[in-house]
Amino acid sequence: MPVYQDPDDPRALDAGALTRWTAAVVERLGTPQDVAADVAEILLASDRRGIASHGTARLPQYVALVDAGVVDPGARPLLEKDLPALARWDARNGWGHHASRVALDHAIERARTAGSCTAVIRRSNHYGIAGWYAIRAAEAGMIGMSLTNSSPLVAPTRARIPMIGTNPIAVAAPAGRFGTLCLDMATSTVPRGRIEVAARRGESLPVGWAIDVDGSPARTPEAALRGALQPLGGGEETAGYKGYGLSLIVDVLTGILGDAAFGPNIVPLFSTHAGIADLGQLFWVIDPAALDDADGFVARMERYCEQLTSAPLIPDAPGRVLIPGEPEAEAERIAARRGIVIDREHHEALGRIAERFGVPLPPAGAPAA
Amino acid sequence: MPVYQDPDDPRALDAGALTRWTAAVVERLGTPQDVAADVAEILLASDRRGIASHGTARLPQYVALVDAGVVDPGARPLLEKDLPALARWDARNGWGHHASRVALDHAIERARTAGSCTAVIRRSNHYGIAGWYAIRAAEAGMIGMSLTNSSPLVAPTRARIPMIGTNPIAVAAPAGRFGTLCLDMATSTVPRGRIEVAARRGESLPVGWAIDVDGSPARTPEAALRGALQPLGGGEETAGYKGYGLSLIVDVLTGILGDAAFGPNIVPLFSTHAGIADLGQLFWVIDPAALDDADGFVARMERYCEQLTSAPLIPDAPGRVLIPGEPEAEAERIAARRGIVIDREHHEALGRIAERFGVPLPPAGAPAA
Repeated sequence: MPVYQDPDDPRALDAGALTRWTAAVVERLGTPQDVAADVAEILLASDRRGIASHGTARLPQYVALVDAGVVDPGARPLLEKDLPALARWDARNGWGHHASRVALDHAIERARTAGSCTAVIRRSNHYGIAGWYAIRAAEAGMIGMSLTNSSPLVAPTRARIPMIGTNPIAVAAPAGRFGTLCLDMATSTVPRGRIEVAARRGESLPVGWAIDVDGSPARTPEAALRGALQPLGGGEETAGYKGYGLSLIVDVLTGILGDAAFGPNIVPLFSTHAGIADLGQLFWVIDPAALDDADGFVARMERYCEQLTSAPLIPDAPGRVLIPGEPEAEAERIAARRGIVIDREHHEALGRIAERFGVPLPPAGAPAA
Repeated sequence: MPVYQDPDDPRALDAGALTRWTAAVVERLGTPQDVAADVAEILLASDRRGIASHGTARLPQYVALVDAGVVDPGARPLLEKDLPALARWDARNGWGHHASRVALDHAIERARTAGSCTAVIRRSNHYGIAGWYAIRAAEAGMIGMSLTNSSPLVAPTRARIPMIGTNPIAVAAPAGRFGTLCLDMATSTVPRGRIEVAARRGESLPVGWAIDVDGSPARTPEAALRGALQPLGGGEETAGYKGYGLSLIVDVLTGILGDAAFGPNIVPLFSTHAGIADLGQLFWVIDPAALDDADGFVARMERYCEQLTSAPLIPDAPGRVLIPGEPEAEAERIAARRGIVIDREHHEALGRIAERFGVPLPPAGAPAA
């Protein structure tokens, strides 16, 4: 399990070198060069942004999926339907990262003439961090939304078992001198990785994170891991049905709309023996420049960010009000200076892949202060 | 303040008669007949669905806004930008309900050829329940999303003062024999009306609903009403920044995208002396029939609803797993039988309006069992 803020026996690798190494490994799996470059860039974007659970730490599991014949590393996405503002893609069980990048770029181009465009993908696989695609749209001057469904880990309000995914919602927009606003959130209170971190740290869990197999609140990580995550909001009395509703809506817009798998029918995360994932993804892109002068939208974003970040604070605030995406942008700046800091287990796993494919891992050093 | 489930001295009015009466009153304010019909239908939809806070209980406040010259009752919306999949409307400070219905219907028509369409409105006013528009899209066979920004009532995570609205998110889709799935949620843990109900009932508040003026958790309704609501998720440790992020995204997609007011710059709710509301609304419509045969989407929705509603339950579940929108649909069925049940205060307020405009209120009776 990848670490978050406190890696065990940390070591630092240069982000650019690790990206090239990852691309080379993905190529050795039978992936065309341009497809592998997308996979590597998006995995490293997660590492750079401090979201270890969606980055190169997952490479051993991706390799296992290809080894087992569950993911087709050579597949290219197929454009099945192409209306002026709605496209459906078949990822043909290839890399979700590449199919999503292609579908998103197509939607951005369509939005330049239609004003907005929606793209949905089926027969896809994990696509990494949802925010990467939303940010890519924002860097093209657009408002971008990125959704994916995922393996059942969350119990709907009142249900005892996991039936829906942590189904993230990411939305980004250009914010001028405030960079890119990017909300990238799981629709569960916490992701499963946070429970695994709590297990490693020996923490007990607050009410609202997870339930045990019998449906009672899980107060230990072990109980949570055999039970189910709770949707954002927690139990019914604290409006957890809103998180459940949001997760369900993500599934409606991806799995159901795209004719992919959905809800409890999605195979377990990184399973090598349960069949293909058949995930669905959706991108929604809007061009603000179609509505007023190109600078108007960004100027308003800056004014709003200025107002929010200068708000008077509650007594125990650990800092000023944040704009969504600021912590991840700060992690990116740190990674640019220190490199990608990973723990020993993660490093050793990459080392085994390096050895198997004959692609030497870039040198690792002690992280800079 | 309108009541929820426990009206004081309840009386029942026929929904159809109350709709006609409401339309007549809105016409007397200087509103064209077709515009008034939209306002009445949408206010009554709220009453029918059991959401008293957005229905005819607000009529005295709407009348006051027109009396004060803050809302223009005769305005018709103007289509300012009309791309194949993106439109911007100027509501010209008229009724938000009508401008929104017109913009939504236009987006539905555009989506029939483009596959999807996004419409944004500026210089608008309150539009009633967000869900009404999403459901209207679903009844046209579409997936519909409806967003509005609103007066600052919610404190962003870490902030001590209200700066953002309860900015609702509504999404609906046709679900065959399960009716219409409709998530319609404020992005705060609870709406302000729920605090007002707690005040009337003398309840104390759970942590996560609101903060006091000093930024500490509000444990009494009185403290909450002078302080600020908290975003969905509550405090920072329970992921309240997700609710804050969702509220902010709604504002980006409405106020900022539409070049309307946003965040702390929106005038207080129903203020008659602070200038126009200049709210923003957004509708996003997708035509599933553009992607596969017309029945495919609905069949998958039915299968998903079937799976969710037959899930094994937690020990203290008050009933089976619900599909978003089921409680409101049940309220509609009850209202069709019992009429619209309102409390004495609400009834007397409508009576004063009836007298002023010379439009007799329909008879009220004791609610049927």
